[in-house]
Amino acid sequence: MATVQEKASSVKRASRILANASTAKKNALLKTIAAELKKETQEICKANALDLQLAWEAGLSGVTLDRLTLDENRIAQMIAGIRDVIKLPDPVGEIFGKRRRPNGLVIEKMRVPLGSVGIIYESRPNVTVDASVLCLKTGNAVLLRGGSEAIGTNTVLVKIIKSALNKVCLPDGCVELIETTDRSAVTEMIKQDKFIDVIIPRGSQSLIRFIAENSSIPVIVHGEGNCHIYVDSSADLEVAEKIVVNAKVQRPSVCNAAEKLLVHEKIAGTFLPRIAQALRNEHVELRGDERTVSIVADINPAEDADWPREYLDLVMAIKIVGSIDEAIEHINTYGTHHSDAIVTKNKKNGEKFLREVDSAAVYVNASTRFTDGYEFGLGAEIGISTQKLHARGPMGLVELTGAKFIVHGKGTIRV
Amino acid sequence: MATVQEKASSVKRASRILANASTAKKNALLKTIAAELKKETQEICKANALDLQLAWEAGLSGVTLDRLTLDENRIAQMIAGIRDVIKLPDPVGEIFGKRRRPNGLVIEKMRVPLGSVGIIYESRPNVTVDASVLCLKTGNAVLLRGGSEAIGTNTVLVKIIKSALNKVCLPDGCVELIETTDRSAVTEMIKQDKFIDVIIPRGSQSLIRFIAENSSIPVIVHGEGNCHIYVDSSADLEVAEKIVVNAKVQRPSVCNAAEKLLVHEKIAGTFLPRIAQALRNEHVELRGDERTVSIVADINPAEDADWPREYLDLVMAIKIVGSIDEAIEHINTYGTHHSDAIVTKNKKNGEKFLREVDSAAVYVNASTRFTDGYEFGLGAEIGISTQKLHARGPMGLVELTGAKFIVHGKGTIRV
Repeated sequence: MATVQEKASSVKRASRILANASTAKKNALLKTIAAELKKETQEICKANALDLQLAWEAGLSGVTLDRLTLDENRIAQMIAGIRDVIKLPDPVGEIFGKRRRPNGLVIEKMRVPLGSVGIIYESRPNVTVDASVLCLKTGNAVLLRGGSEAIGTNTVLVKIIKSALNKVCLPDGCVELIETTDRSAVTEMIKQDKFIDVIIPRGSQSLIRFIAENSSIPVIVHGEGNCHIYVDSSADLEVAEKIVVNAKVQRPSVCNAAEKLLVHEKIAGTFLPRIAQALRNEHVELRGDERTVSIVADINPAEDADWPREYLDLVMAIKIVGSIDEAIEHINTYGTHHSDAIVTKNKKNGEKFLREVDSAAVYVNASTRFTDGYEFGLGAEIGISTQKLHARGPMGLVELTGAKFIVHGKGTIRV
Repeated sequence: MATVQEKASSVKRASRILANASTAKKNALLKTIAAELKKETQEICKANALDLQLAWEAGLSGVTLDRLTLDENRIAQMIAGIRDVIKLPDPVGEIFGKRRRPNGLVIEKMRVPLGSVGIIYESRPNVTVDASVLCLKTGNAVLLRGGSEAIGTNTVLVKIIKSALNKVCLPDGCVELIETTDRSAVTEMIKQDKFIDVIIPRGSQSLIRFIAENSSIPVIVHGEGNCHIYVDSSADLEVAEKIVVNAKVQRPSVCNAAEKLLVHEKIAGTFLPRIAQALRNEHVELRGDERTVSIVADINPAEDADWPREYLDLVMAIKIVGSIDEAIEHINTYGTHHSDAIVTKNKKNGEKFLREVDSAAVYVNASTRFTDGYEFGLGAEIGISTQKLHARGPMGLVELTGAKFIVHGKGTIRV
């Protein structure tokens, strides 16, 4: 079995060739991958059934088993996803930012692949295909490290991708899977800065935190989503109710679901009983600050630990604030800089909120649930970044590229 | 004395207020800093003289003593630099990338400060002012950690900046200096990911490497410059000579100086004796691969260790290549992805080189010495990034900002 370093080095070598592949060639590759996946559906299901059997015997939870499952339907979804990516424009090669200098130099930027991308993820084997396809479309080679419980499925999926690479005459090192299921392989992978240009971890916060702290390669961090809705004194209360309920209950287990409700004191007396009723109708457990407790009947008091917390569940904590400034201060202090919204009819307050809330996506009069590459019209999503460098918010194809300076001279020298 | 964490936390708090300061306010701040520096020139010189005295007694080298020196002339240069930054456009607040979604959402991006920037640097105290000014102009608060030998000068400079912050009613936590001169303060600083958004190290490769490997905060790495000039078979040899000599000797101690010369075999017989003579006239020591040794008289053979090496000195290694592909392969293998140039009259080869050489700045018919924020027309330079995320190549004001998504809805919810 090849070592982590050998795989990383293989990916780097392949990345140099892939970086210069034409859009037509890359799309032919994706088409071939889709066809091979379809052809090999039964083999994938067989490998997945074995992984599931072992996971079940090891006593893994029902949620994990569900994430691990790849049935015909999910494989068909993966294939449909690839067809969508084929249709997306290829950002690589775009030239922009032209400047002409007094000495005659013409300086431009050219969009180029990042090079080699390391993806570290957990139980979902569909990430093996989804992430690889986005990387390949943007000319990036990829080193994969999936969850140990999905190793059988992932091995078959990567074999299929490699066979497609061979068919279109691209090096099969463009996609490598680390087969060592030991955790030490992750530690080794995130030190391969000589070969890997960026690490994108997808999974639990503890995994992401471990990687960010120990990697010598730049990491794009997908942090937690402790998202807020602030209902301003001038809000249309019907709109506010609709947005709060949607942001909380439409899919409570995801990072862009709302966890906290801040309400301006002027409207708390009318709005809180109404929204409490609406949320309870949807089985949301409410927790309130002291003033909320005095307005809403039968509500548990929120504790200090509630304000910074991401529930990912049908729970919402409510706080009354005296001003938009207090709301912004609360969000910037306790939030996770993911997605936050204001409901207001006051245009000035809306603009202030957009400007001053320090989050990846800030909304006026809309649900936080839209923070997503597809909803934002990027056509794809490799992840959602909550850090500030390179990419912030949903990351699509462009975020898998960088830009180099290209300079034309006429024998120009520096004096 | 405040701890590193207290300083980092102070910077973060101040950054929230500074992020919302208007361009006029930020420019007033810079003007005040310039005025205060002028007023306090004698105090700065006094503190610097003491640092120099101690450094001299400690036996530091002449180069370090020169870097450490701040005389009236250098202070005047710093002040002139601030005046230039005042004139530059403020990128913060720019709105771009508008998309309208079928559901009515309007999604845009807004350019915002990164937040809080940690600068770790070595002996030059002018960095204290230069870096602070670029950060403040872009609404970023800054945590500084300078060289221990410059601590007296840096303390006075930061006192002056803080007094200017007070005068324009901005929190003086916008600029904090770590006063602990112990190396452990660096280790502590690069773990303050709760408070610091990005680390920009400036200094030796060993310092940068240590920081990249140990930081839990994203780092923008300024790597070495093992820069190449490839002289193609179709090159105008006069142009080639001019560019090679300029790139090698105009300032050999800097990262964008050329270290390697690759020559196409078809022209090696004519070009090599000519360029060897020209470089030797400028006191450049030459080292050649086997074929070069057979053409150029009295040249030392290059060793394997020469090809990946950055000399930062009047030394150049020469290699004969059989094709442009071999040149590109050599550069991508042994180079440091900083700045590389081709000299050619063949347009297709020029475009191929620009596309395929994986470096921050790639040139056709120009000297590599132009890789610099001022030369590229950015108006300023906080550093040169050799990594691929966020910023690649010279970094100006825009590279000290990020972008968040701002979204306008009309009570829009996700279905």
